[in-house]
Amino acid sequence: MTPRLVEVRQNVLKHNDEVARALRERFHASGVFVISLVSSPGSGKTTFLERTLTLLQPAYRVAALVGDLATENDARRLARSRAPVRQIVTGTLCHLEAAMVENALEGWSPGELDFLFIENVGNLVCPSSYDLGEDLRLILVSVTEGEDKPLKYPTIFNTSDVTIVSKMDLAEAAEFDWQALESNIQAVRPGMRVLRVSAKTGQGMDEWLEWLTALRSSAARLPGQ
Amino acid sequence: MTPRLVEVRQNVLKHNDEVARALRERFHASGVFVISLVSSPGSGKTTFLERTLTLLQPAYRVAALVGDLATENDARRLARSRAPVRQIVTGTLCHLEAAMVENALEGWSPGELDFLFIENVGNLVCPSSYDLGEDLRLILVSVTEGEDKPLKYPTIFNTSDVTIVSKMDLAEAAEFDWQALESNIQAVRPGMRVLRVSAKTGQGMDEWLEWLTALRSSAARLPGQ
Repeated sequence: MTPRLVEVRQNVLKHNDEVARALRERFHASGVFVISLVSSPGSGKTTFLERTLTLLQPAYRVAALVGDLATENDARRLARSRAPVRQIVTGTLCHLEAAMVENALEGWSPGELDFLFIENVGNLVCPSSYDLGEDLRLILVSVTEGEDKPLKYPTIFNTSDVTIVSKMDLAEAAEFDWQALESNIQAVRPGMRVLRVSAKTGQGMDEWLEWLTALRSSAARLPGQ
Repeated sequence: MTPRLVEVRQNVLKHNDEVARALRERFHASGVFVISLVSSPGSGKTTFLERTLTLLQPAYRVAALVGDLATENDARRLARSRAPVRQIVTGTLCHLEAAMVENALEGWSPGELDFLFIENVGNLVCPSSYDLGEDLRLILVSVTEGEDKPLKYPTIFNTSDVTIVSKMDLAEAAEFDWQALESNIQAVRPGMRVLRVSAKTGQGMDEWLEWLTALRSSAARLPGQ
């Protein structure tokens, strides 16, 4: 990048960080736990999120924001869960920014929610640098993508908290090598938690939701949260 | 984006177009046919390219450039084809630019090649706007990514010439819907050629290579090429 482009980009990031910080304070004050999702296009974020919203709803108040370049398809798919969903259309932008989340929340009261999910644009590069004020960032990797993704996209793994290995139902057909992926994740981000799921068959979804709801409960008990 | 960021970005793109134009003239003058590949991370570009290089080599002189953020893994994989391969490490940049291609070619004589392949960074957004001087841009979509990708990433489909549907060996396991993908491609880019392959089983590779070599022959006969 040219030095001027770097400078302008740094200002954009600094502004984003300020908006994200304000968002995070607002989320904490109102008691909503916020989870963002990043991945390649086609890793199964929307299917995983639809299933998560559906399974959480009997007990929790949930909602979702979903970012996409050009369509509202994902919002329509997620709406089948009957949770409130809003689409953020980013145009040519390959990531969400905190200000877009802030705008999309207009008229909503986060205090009425237990969980808010934010599905980012499908991209393993651009979303890395943009804090959205979330409590937890998930990175999804499907078993069909190859086990080398953490090594090839280390920054986004480093800015994420948990890896969700998706499409486990295709593991055998894709000759998925669990040991290789796990060791590549740990090489890039030692100690990272990794969960394996299939949103299609339901495999691993109970474990994921138990872990998530426990995390929310313990976060709520922390001073200053 | 801020107006200033838009302005700086337009200057970067204008400069890229100039470098790409010069590259294209140089490629045409030396008779090398240049193909670039774009896709999501994990769509199978490297496996497809390794197989393509291997199958073309008995009859043609081939080489490849491969872009990645952080590793030289893909260059190592492609080197198994015994074709000359060079890695371009892009750092945090989510696409290749024409100047990177120009630099990577230093010391190579394109006139000694029949085909040059350029594998872009895995990304369905960033590479759209950057001309690399190629004759043909392929977009790969694997059967496991979902049939909605053309609707969600229309710009990159519009700047590509051919869609390669990859990992056809997983089509049944993934419940891939060929009609849905084909109709979404045609909705975004009417008349686009679509080829279905599995680099793993070899399905569709003959058809792809016959088509590619015929295209190169006819391009060589065009005046001004």
